[in-house]
Amino acid sequence: MAHVDLNADLGEGFGVWRLGDDDAMLDIVTSANVACGFHAGDPAGLLRVCRAAADRGVRIGAQVGYRDLAGFGRRFIDADPAELTAEIIYQIGALSALAAAAGSTVSYVKPHGALYNSIVTHEAQAHAVAQAVHAVNPALPVLGLAGSVFFDAAEQLGLRTVAEAFADRAYQPNGRLVSRREPGAVLHDATAIAERVHTMVVAGTVTAVDGTDIPVTVESVCVHGDSPGALLTATAVRDRLIAAGVRPAPFS
Amino acid sequence: MAHVDLNADLGEGFGVWRLGDDDAMLDIVTSANVACGFHAGDPAGLLRVCRAAADRGVRIGAQVGYRDLAGFGRRFIDADPAELTAEIIYQIGALSALAAAAGSTVSYVKPHGALYNSIVTHEAQAHAVAQAVHAVNPALPVLGLAGSVFFDAAEQLGLRTVAEAFADRAYQPNGRLVSRREPGAVLHDATAIAERVHTMVVAGTVTAVDGTDIPVTVESVCVHGDSPGALLTATAVRDRLIAAGVRPAPFS
Amino acid sequence: MAHVDLNADLGEGFGVWRLGDDDAMLDIVTSANVACGFHAGDPAGLLRVCRAAADRGVRIGAQVGYRDLAGFGRRFIDADPAELTAEIIYQIGALSALAAAAGSTVSYVKPHGALYNSIVTHEAQAHAVAQAVHAVNPALPVLGLAGSVFFDAAEQLGLRTVAEAFADRAYQPNGRLVSRREPGAVLHDATAIAERVHTMVVAGTVTAVDGTDIPVTVESVCVHGDSPGALLTATAVRDRLIAAGVRPAPFS
Amino acid sequence: MAHVDLNADLGEGFGVWRLGDDDAMLDIVTSANVACGFHAGDPAGLLRVCRAAADRGVRIGAQVGYRDLAGFGRRFIDADPAELTAEIIYQIGALSALAAAAGSTVSYVKPHGALYNSIVTHEAQAHAVAQAVHAVNPALPVLGLAGSVFFDAAEQLGLRTVAEAFADRAYQPNGRLVSRREPGAVLHDATAIAERVHTMVVAGTVTAVDGTDIPVTVESVCVHGDSPGALLTATAVRDRLIAAGVRPAPFS
Repeated sequence: MAHVDLNADLGEGFGVWRLGDDDAMLDIVTSANVACGFHAGDPAGLLRVCRAAADRGVRIGAQVGYRDLAGFGRRFIDADPAELTAEIIYQIGALSALAAAAGSTVSYVKPHGALYNSIVTHEAQAHAVAQAVHAVNPALPVLGLAGSVFFDAAEQLGLRTVAEAFADRAYQPNGRLVSRREPGAVLHDATAIAERVHTMVVAGTVTAVDGTDIPVTVESVCVHGDSPGALLTATAVRDRLIAAGVRPAPFS
Repeated sequence: MAHVDLNADLGEGFGVWRLGDDDAMLDIVTSANVACGFHAGDPAGLLRVCRAAADRGVRIGAQVGYRDLAGFGRRFIDADPAELTAEIIYQIGALSALAAAAGSTVSYVKPHGALYNSIVTHEAQAHAVAQAVHAVNPALPVLGLAGSVFFDAAEQLGLRTVAEAFADRAYQPNGRLVSRREPGAVLHDATAIAERVHTMVVAGTVTAVDGTDIPVTVESVCVHGDSPGALLTATAVRDRLIAAGVRPAPFS
Repeated sequence: MAHVDLNADLGEGFGVWRLGDDDAMLDIVTSANVACGFHAGDPAGLLRVCRAAADRGVRIGAQVGYRDLAGFGRRFIDADPAELTAEIIYQIGALSALAAAAGSTVSYVKPHGALYNSIVTHEAQAHAVAQAVHAVNPALPVLGLAGSVFFDAAEQLGLRTVAEAFADRAYQPNGRLVSRREPGAVLHDATAIAERVHTMVVAGTVTAVDGTDIPVTVESVCVHGDSPGALLTATAVRDRLIAAGVRPAPFS
Repeated sequence: MAHVDLNADLGEGFGVWRLGDDDAMLDIVTSANVACGFHAGDPAGLLRVCRAAADRGVRIGAQVGYRDLAGFGRRFIDADPAELTAEIIYQIGALSALAAAAGSTVSYVKPHGALYNSIVTHEAQAHAVAQAVHAVNPALPVLGLAGSVFFDAAEQLGLRTVAEAFADRAYQPNGRLVSRREPGAVLHDATAIAERVHTMVVAGTVTAVDGTDIPVTVESVCVHGDSPGALLTATAVRDRLIAAGVRPAPFS
């Protein structure tokens, strides 16, 4: 039977502030990208979501980002590569200890927000992130965008790369995401999104913003849960895949 | 041959700001209490000091504190115990990954500043810190003050406790430190301090502020290096011990 | 016609994180306690709420707190008084510039959370806050608890003190609030709360947790809007007062 | 008698961490660019330097920067312009209140570090900063680089622009600074620097890295004091100007 991983960003509150419904999402996804405190996530909240993930057998990944609570890690920072490497090691280690305290472990790393986007093309930061993962554990897979310089850098170091697709984001014809600052960057219709994901997973293609069908590599599908609508969409994606005989399961 | 551990706080800069001469101190001490980013310490600076410690065979400990860069962790914060536990786990994990990237490991935990002082008597926070250490690794020793409720809490969980003495701090007759806010809390004469440490280590006593000699348990001596004067004092302490046939060596 | 001020805490999000419905609350209250960035509030969010308040003619107050985003200013910090004074001046100045850019002004100061509670009894911090307000503008009133040492300190410096009552908080027989950590500290029934506020304002009494009626001085009533239920309660309070012929209006 | 302003960055410590010798610099310069807490500067430290400046009759300017303590404001952040405007207003207001408490006032604004550099060419951020200054006080001059888009934006809003030269920085042939990341970006010989400043002020030219003499507009000269060597250089610059009959005085 066919299968695909479903991942989502979790643990993205901070202190009194909450974001999204982590518990509901943990019933949908198979991999939880848990924040590490730099763009979001206080330790107590992170420990809570690690426990909830462990309870459900959902795999935990370290969602690492720029040090930017005020900007939620969504702003490019021209960080020095050596400093960035140390910051990523720090974040993975911090979450690893919380995951261990929850009876689980960090099984992969996924960059967040502006860092995710910058290392699609930014060589020095891409290498910095890859080196950090490698320094922590050369067996740790990274989740990201196929064709990115981050994947090149990771593969040079022998890291396993896991290509993901975005359920609700518009694609450029070159396979990259349309920036959130552009109109139409985020899709909203749950049924259309579910159908789109089905096509990505089963046919390996997605329709870009210019109307062309482009190939897309999908070992994992990224869904969101930061609004009631997003939660419904994530459920629709999961249901559509199951209806088509595709089982949600962690990537191997 | 007799021996005693010498420990000091290191890695306590942040970004562009430096504090003390870490390299010089690493030539004096046998255990480095490395900051973990909450009261001080940026990841790149922490990685640097971990590498320097590893190069010299100096043992690394996690110097955990309140989340308070502005106050350098020197102000009591009435933190919720469950949140404090998660914050300590987070810090130990973060430093552990950096230490591992430097080819070393975190070998013990020492609370910093106001946290150190508060858990001498604050039951809930003492248990919170002990539980955090236990959750990360039940084999991890804790460095602290003999007779503290922190040591009680740690021992209840089966943690190994290592009693330290302070080279340059005045003692109350009950064996606790005189608060930094009191006059005379910090001693400054290098020769007198070296002699005092010698007495602590060899005779097991120290003269309290009221002139009485009190017993003191010493498996490790805390020295400081945050000023040129402090560095000279630390050197004097080390030299005095060696002259008396006491070898500086990590606690077992 | 009788009148009373209604105040609420606003602008308490941070970056991507939102808290409460500021716009809805601005249609209910006459004074907005706007966060200043230390316990909550990013500058862009604060400017937004200042503009919304200015548009509706709602008065702006500076809601100053401990520097503690992670704890939302709800944890006592043993801050040095001189440092606290400077921190309060900094916060009032920052919000004043944003209020001015929005075409309004900061008309009063209200301490937040743990700072509010600590200066009910903590002499040194109470004086530190009063001195900060006086240093910025001796004509700036302070909102707080009647009988607190903060009010004593403020009055010694000639500051105008404005006594407030809490719509949804339980009172001790001595007129102080029951700690949020105690059961029953926060009331939830909208109708009962509205009735209770009516009694406070019209009769000048409130029923304490031991069942006794105690006197309460009320120039302003603090309501909350950080949940849909809180918003309904605030509306019920306002409606009950108007029905009784008490007009919501800024304190003079 | 000819005169020129001398400015330096002050108040750039944070909490326990100090940077440079503010008191010594205040005896050299005529304008103090005081940090505002976003790239450096805790409120108590800022109040201290404002008082020291007021005591000596040295003018205070608001040195505004990106929110980046970890990077000391030296890293470009792709901040949203509207958010940046609010952040700059916040910083100017905060320092204004501290300056007022010290018996002085904020007399100008100077962007710091990466913000300074980015708005030489970054239109949106340049306008954001200019709008912030204008919103606080349209009569507030800005200190910066002649020919920058920041100066264009400021002049469009009717702000007074004050052109500064850098005593110890290498210039590109187009009049911009050589990036700190390039070799030779910072000059170190005190005598040569003093001579260079003398030529800038008296002849209005500076020798660029390619050996050509280029025109330079100088109403103020930026000197540094963050090391003992820098302090000597600043003194040499001041002495050289006085010897040539150029009096250090605040720009008009």
